[in-house]
Amino acid sequence: MRYDRKQLRWNGWGRNADTFELGEHESDVWDWLQETLGMDVFADRPACALADVVMPEPRLREAVVARLRDIVGDAGLKTDRYERVFHARGRSYPDLLALRSGAVDPAPDAVVYPKTEQEVVRLVALADECNFALIAFGGGSSVVGGVTSIAGPQQVGVVTLDTTRLDRVLSIDEESLTARVQAGAYGPDLEQELQQRGFTLGHYPQSFEFSTLGGWIAARGAGQQSNRYGKAEEWLVSANIATPQGLWTTEGFPASAAGPSIGHLIAGGEGALGIITEATVAIHRVPKETDYRGYLFREFAHAVTAAREIMQQGLPVAMVRVSDPDESMFLQRFSQLRKPPGRVKKVADDLLELTGWGEGRAMMLVGIEGEPDNVRAAHARVTTIVRRHRAFPLGQSAGKSWYKSRFSMPYLRDPLLDRGVAVDTLETSTHWSNVHSLHRRVIETIRDTLQTQAVSPQSRAIVMCHVSHCYRDGASLYFTFVFPQRCDDALAQWKAVKHAACEALVEGGGTISHHHGVGTDHAPWLRREKGEIGYRLLQAIKADIDPNRVLNPGKLLAD
Amino acid sequence: MRYDRKQLRWNGWGRNADTFELGEHESDVWDWLQETLGMDVFADRPACALADVVMPEPRLREAVVARLRDIVGDAGLKTDRYERVFHARGRSYPDLLALRSGAVDPAPDAVVYPKTEQEVVRLVALADECNFALIAFGGGSSVVGGVTSIAGPQQVGVVTLDTTRLDRVLSIDEESLTARVQAGAYGPDLEQELQQRGFTLGHYPQSFEFSTLGGWIAARGAGQQSNRYGKAEEWLVSANIATPQGLWTTEGFPASAAGPSIGHLIAGGEGALGIITEATVAIHRVPKETDYRGYLFREFAHAVTAAREIMQQGLPVAMVRVSDPDESMFLQRFSQLRKPPGRVKKVADDLLELTGWGEGRAMMLVGIEGEPDNVRAAHARVTTIVRRHRAFPLGQSAGKSWYKSRFSMPYLRDPLLDRGVAVDTLETSTHWSNVHSLHRRVIETIRDTLQTQAVSPQSRAIVMCHVSHCYRDGASLYFTFVFPQRCDDALAQWKAVKHAACEALVEGGGTISHHHGVGTDHAPWLRREKGEIGYRLLQAIKADIDPNRVLNPGKLLAD
Repeated sequence: MRYDRKQLRWNGWGRNADTFELGEHESDVWDWLQETLGMDVFADRPACALADVVMPEPRLREAVVARLRDIVGDAGLKTDRYERVFHARGRSYPDLLALRSGAVDPAPDAVVYPKTEQEVVRLVALADECNFALIAFGGGSSVVGGVTSIAGPQQVGVVTLDTTRLDRVLSIDEESLTARVQAGAYGPDLEQELQQRGFTLGHYPQSFEFSTLGGWIAARGAGQQSNRYGKAEEWLVSANIATPQGLWTTEGFPASAAGPSIGHLIAGGEGALGIITEATVAIHRVPKETDYRGYLFREFAHAVTAAREIMQQGLPVAMVRVSDPDESMFLQRFSQLRKPPGRVKKVADDLLELTGWGEGRAMMLVGIEGEPDNVRAAHARVTTIVRRHRAFPLGQSAGKSWYKSRFSMPYLRDPLLDRGVAVDTLETSTHWSNVHSLHRRVIETIRDTLQTQAVSPQSRAIVMCHVSHCYRDGASLYFTFVFPQRCDDALAQWKAVKHAACEALVEGGGTISHHHGVGTDHAPWLRREKGEIGYRLLQAIKADIDPNRVLNPGKLLAD
Repeated sequence: MRYDRKQLRWNGWGRNADTFELGEHESDVWDWLQETLGMDVFADRPACALADVVMPEPRLREAVVARLRDIVGDAGLKTDRYERVFHARGRSYPDLLALRSGAVDPAPDAVVYPKTEQEVVRLVALADECNFALIAFGGGSSVVGGVTSIAGPQQVGVVTLDTTRLDRVLSIDEESLTARVQAGAYGPDLEQELQQRGFTLGHYPQSFEFSTLGGWIAARGAGQQSNRYGKAEEWLVSANIATPQGLWTTEGFPASAAGPSIGHLIAGGEGALGIITEATVAIHRVPKETDYRGYLFREFAHAVTAAREIMQQGLPVAMVRVSDPDESMFLQRFSQLRKPPGRVKKVADDLLELTGWGEGRAMMLVGIEGEPDNVRAAHARVTTIVRRHRAFPLGQSAGKSWYKSRFSMPYLRDPLLDRGVAVDTLETSTHWSNVHSLHRRVIETIRDTLQTQAVSPQSRAIVMCHVSHCYRDGASLYFTFVFPQRCDDALAQWKAVKHAACEALVEGGGTISHHHGVGTDHAPWLRREKGEIGYRLLQAIKADIDPNRVLNPGKLLAD
């Protein structure tokens, strides 16, 4: 199901044909949101039409373009307006601001679609020889500026390398449970091919439909079920990477003591250390059963403790998520408005509130996948733990409803932006003993900064969080904030809150990103996270692999 | 229980006071071994006495020695014969050849015992300033030449830094299940301190009693229960490393997408990228129950398939080991000779052979640890799998007997060497689909090479193997070979078989080491394993951290 790129939004999420369906009560949802955000009236901020977009003129010399054409052929070289603007940016909030404004600068001079690994190797060598920036681009769903078409200071132009024609499952080792897959395979293609043969990678990030294997690895992504299937750096066995030094195949042993694992540098390389052409990945048999359920806790702290115990007892869960009280209330209200509860459900809801399930309540989702017997056994053990923390079981309907819409949320952003409502997210991880302190610190920072950046005195922000991925030693926190957009300078408003939140993360003992990556947006904080010696080492690694800095300049390492 | 170093053998394994107890039937064991190896009579090759050891004169100038003394004090600086020879080498076969011969060259000019992290940092800076080699030394149990006191070409001397006075558990985060521990803690010290508080690291390599936390990390070690507790690179959360650039603390988040994981370079650094002073490690609650059992399979292949299924179904086992037929027979015979079976056991053994359990039989050991309920549930699932492969259950006694003597085997090497019998081991890992092919290839290579290197036409070698650690995608193979030593040139004999075996590993799709490390002995094969680009990158990393190459020269990277 590879996409014809022209069916995809060049300035928003997903397919032109698809939107987030708010249903028959749509206007209630909008009214509630308007009131919650303290807006008298929504703004009217339509995105600029493609025909009106202004981009810089391509500056790559014809001789270089001819050499690109030599490598990828006529069909693989694109310089039209749609392709250039589609590949100019990723899908971060500032990306959308730029794309919707119509002033798109920078933009790639050309886009190339190699069909073989050898073509990628030749393109990288050409970039190195001719000194143009080469941007690896899979689905383009980066939310951290990871694919912005920036050239370095002395470079003669920018070419974006779109990997999506490298999209085949090359082989499956059914005995070792690994698959060799080309890096440009979109999530749905990859899963379809694997599942036809009884296997799954099980990597389902929210961007699943519009992101690629190579992008997941390059950004150290995490699927929603990463407890079962692993984060990208865990399911990655080995990779082929095209570098200015040639094609590099990393070690792929089940385990090794042959010195430091150099292959571990690939996950998180963000196209700055090479362009991934194929990867060998760990696969699983398609689970026979999936069981997703919701639980309600009286307090966030109880739910977090239960999540920690589930992990530390080694229960084979696929997913544990815990929404903080603000997110729990938001999700419940959003769901009630879209689909008003029947009388029985309403009485039950009222009863809950009457019996003390107040504003502090927190929702947990637990997903278990596998053989039916094992799923049942794990569920029983989860039940023992959550009961001890006096959870109220919401049953499978809450889980099913989440599962059904797990990829659809990004579609909401475009209609929100049309109305002058901004939404952004950021995420981190920290140790269990620091989860609550970091949670409070980041929430307060975002809320306070948005207050100082508010459109009007009565405008309000929605700031909420969930524990999105759990580990034995800690968890990730995923923050979402929704706020009325300042029309005069929306970018400055965002920068203020982004800066303050990133400072809060780094100062508060969290990583600058758990699965979104670094890109341009987090690069200023990387030195503090890695430490001076670690950061300089990363610079040395970059200098060794890509001495002319032609690969994805400006990302990962800002200097 | 830190050791007074003088109670430890300087030229063999463990404590002077301890030996491998062969029991009352000792002479039967030796007779059988002599016959099996085709030796008419054992040789008589006692080790050289300490007083007769010849070492090079120390060449470090007094001014430099004075500066060492400034840092570690009088009590922390050793230059006597025992300390120099104890720290000259690790415990590989060529190490023992050198130590037992009495011609010990190289040897360190001095040995320092820092007591604080800051002293380590100062020692590293001094090495860098004065250009002497600095060798990190924990327990000194390396079997790959990892601690040989080699100086680089232009260096003015060699100092060995013994970490064992840095041996404290600094703190425990009971919520996040991590502990900060100084790098020089010996296994028993570390476990005693943790277990007093209810926790365990669970890292039990065969060298456990005489190796340290820092060494386990530096060599990417694996404990026998690594399925539950992880290999060193897995339980390592973060580390402090003294480098010529200063003290480096690596990232320690539960998970992160902040670029490549630089901290992953620490495990396997072998003292060549810095000296580990402390580490934060993942800990577990002490398991309430341990269940170790043996199973007998009619064929090695059946046992390997069962081991693979146990891993791929995600059963929470701590350990799965499978001995190949040669090892299974050897272990059974060895055990029978040490403790002749009673009548019932003997009849049972005979019955087994009568009913077709012939020479192809393979023994599996499965260890499960944890909460009693979970141990029982996991055992039931293991039983289902092994039954399908028609395993014969040997019960807990086989498991208990292995568990009891799991650290004692290295003690056997010294009396063997006294008798002119060599024993060495090597290990690798590969994917399940390659396990049998690699197993055959390496066994045949070792056997054939030992044949060409034989002492006499009738002398024979014992060559055997077990699957020592299992993963979802593959397993490690651990080879042991015992052979009559050539007295004229024992080192050349060993080099021939080591070289041939390493070639067989690398050509056959195995890693050059699964948990022993690289040291001097595997360094010639690292370039092929990492690939040209990967290897050059490792050189660039070394050059960035240790530009003057003062840290453990000649190890890991041979050039």
